[in-house]
Amino acid sequence: LNIALLAGDGIGPEVINQAVKVCDAVAVKHGHEIKWIPALTGAAAIDAVGEPYPDETHKICINADAILFGAIGHPKYDNDPSAKVRPEQGLLKMRKKLGLFANVRPTFTFPSLIDNSPLKRERIEGTDLVFLRELTGGIYFGEKGRKDGGETAFDTCTYTREEVIRLAKKGFELAMTRSKKLCCVDKANVLETSRLWRETVQAMEKDYPEVEVSYEFVDAVAMRLVQWPNSYDVLITENLFGDILTDEASVISGSMGLMPSASVGEKTSLYEPIHGSYPQAAGKNIANPLATILSAAMMFEDAFGLKQEAESIRNVVNKSLAEGVVTEDLSGKNKAYKTSEVGDWLV
Amino acid sequence: LNIALLAGDGIGPEVINQAVKVCDAVAVKHGHEIKWIPALTGAAAIDAVGEPYPDETHKICINADAILFGAIGHPKYDNDPSAKVRPEQGLLKMRKKLGLFANVRPTFTFPSLIDNSPLKRERIEGTDLVFLRELTGGIYFGEKGRKDGGETAFDTCTYTREEVIRLAKKGFELAMTRSKKLCCVDKANVLETSRLWRETVQAMEKDYPEVEVSYEFVDAVAMRLVQWPNSYDVLITENLFGDILTDEASVISGSMGLMPSASVGEKTSLYEPIHGSYPQAAGKNIANPLATILSAAMMFEDAFGLKQEAESIRNVVNKSLAEGVVTEDLSGKNKAYKTSEVGDWLV
Ligand SMILES: CC(C)[C@H](C(=O)O)[C@@H](O)C(=O)O
Ligand SMILES: CC(C)[C@H](C(=O)O)[C@@H](O)C(=O)O
Repeated sequence: LNIALLAGDGIGPEVINQAVKVCDAVAVKHGHEIKWIPALTGAAAIDAVGEPYPDETHKICINADAILFGAIGHPKYDNDPSAKVRPEQGLLKMRKKLGLFANVRPTFTFPSLIDNSPLKRERIEGTDLVFLRELTGGIYFGEKGRKDGGETAFDTCTYTREEVIRLAKKGFELAMTRSKKLCCVDKANVLETSRLWRETVQAMEKDYPEVEVSYEFVDAVAMRLVQWPNSYDVLITENLFGDILTDEASVISGSMGLMPSASVGEKTSLYEPIHGSYPQAAGKNIANPLATILSAAMMFEDAFGLKQEAESIRNVVNKSLAEGVVTEDLSGKNKAYKTSEVGDWLV
Repeated sequence: LNIALLAGDGIGPEVINQAVKVCDAVAVKHGHEIKWIPALTGAAAIDAVGEPYPDETHKICINADAILFGAIGHPKYDNDPSAKVRPEQGLLKMRKKLGLFANVRPTFTFPSLIDNSPLKRERIEGTDLVFLRELTGGIYFGEKGRKDGGETAFDTCTYTREEVIRLAKKGFELAMTRSKKLCCVDKANVLETSRLWRETVQAMEKDYPEVEVSYEFVDAVAMRLVQWPNSYDVLITENLFGDILTDEASVISGSMGLMPSASVGEKTSLYEPIHGSYPQAAGKNIANPLATILSAAMMFEDAFGLKQEAESIRNVVNKSLAEGVVTEDLSGKNKAYKTSEVGDWLV
């Protein structure tokens, strides 16, 4: 198994290290051999070679069987609207060049952690939803710029029917393996791109007669996600709405440090925790490595078809939660373990 | 006081009726005379004259001292992406033609209703924030359409520096009357329009040296709003982000049926409840009229400078909540009052 290893910025390297240890242990137990191929990305890559997603890194990624990713972002770029090179550009370039058009983000609750949520227990119990966010189109990649000597700015949101179809197809297929409920999130009462989304998904309904499809406006979903998250199953949406709603959804479980994600597309898939680079914690050995480790479990299952290996990672993670071998974000009044101690215990 | 009365669709007429009764009672008590000028809008206007915001209605609005608005929207338009005329177009046309560039949306908690929230008490206690949403620009009003024989759709988000300045100015001024904290919500790591917003607001900081300004990405705010709503005070943002985030925020208090709003701009201001037309409840005399009545209180205070009148409305609303004279959405296991009964009690 050739895995490209993109640790990135902030706490990225620390959490990635634990995932590597756990994957190696699983590989030994199940008789696999993993070859890790580290590559530069994000602010770390800008510092080293002036480019957040160097060609060298791209070459490593396309030739790998899967990509394990930490986090990118550094505060020195955030408050400088005029910065010429930004870590985020690397992320967007990577998504586009690797054709990672679908970001898969599950949100579920851990029974032992349910009281960590800002939401009341009775509102979130049983929540098990998945967002499929379109990741290589929309306003992220449309034409943008300035006019009138810099006084007017514009961004263009563009979608083709084909882009909608390939994302929606994944949504319908995923719904078929779950409870057969699909929600298409858009703003069809205002946006032309949303009307294209809605009419395209409506036309696909006949190919999946068992799937019950609903259409909801993004503002209504932003409300209902917090009110009744367990009323949703599979949700599909465009890039920017997905960015906002998946982050909102990540709060539901109260365990943001535990939520994994996958970005899938034409060839190699990428697995990453949904949390960011959390610069305040970088280098302190306190960050929660579990989201990255659970992303590695998704990688075993989805990229390699190794279900048992994925299960053995999930099982040991559940055990660490049950026995309280957790970092300070989850330890409450009990002893907080260090990032590396959690990794060692899982191994 | 000449007030244009736009009842609109669904529960609009029912809740507007209660507000009219309450305003009339306040006027009598304080020696004012109100002239109500009813006008058509929304689906009701399409049905009557084929147009969701008729010129006749616009004439009435620009000549009024204020506008009291119910709700618009009818389900028969929602699942038809190809409908030629939609109630929402009326709303957008009205905002644009009346120059209502700032939507003011407070979110606060009512001590007696705090346990209605899906969020835990300790997370929301003390929440008192205000969104200023830009309402006449951005992707709502930019060029949109189809290309490639309908196979490609596009929407354009445009902002000029002037549009940002006039909205941000209101934000800074509002912050000065409150706790002097302003949060500018954008997506400056991806969008050019957001970078214009951020650089423009940054340049205005020197004119308000007492205001502490923070800049946060929209996805981060979508999370933090649910995690720690009471960490925010005044938030300014562009049209689409504002649409999503203000709806999300409306859930915090657990009393969506109670949240008022104002849309202000160049001349006449408009006051409306934040809830929608709630077609399932239309005609049943069960809808909560308090958000509309509290919007009328905002109208007395802000449009007419009649603070005492506003306070007397707010006081009697608080009394109805304390004494349980409330509609079924708030009555819990106790007796539910009808929409009109709540109105009568307040009078
Ligand atoms: C860092 C940023 C460009 C990125 C995005 O907006 O896609 C992030 O928020 C995410 O969701 O992965
Ligand atoms: C009905 C719709 C066009 C409108 C909007 O998106 O502005 C509504 O959601 C609102 O927030 O007033």
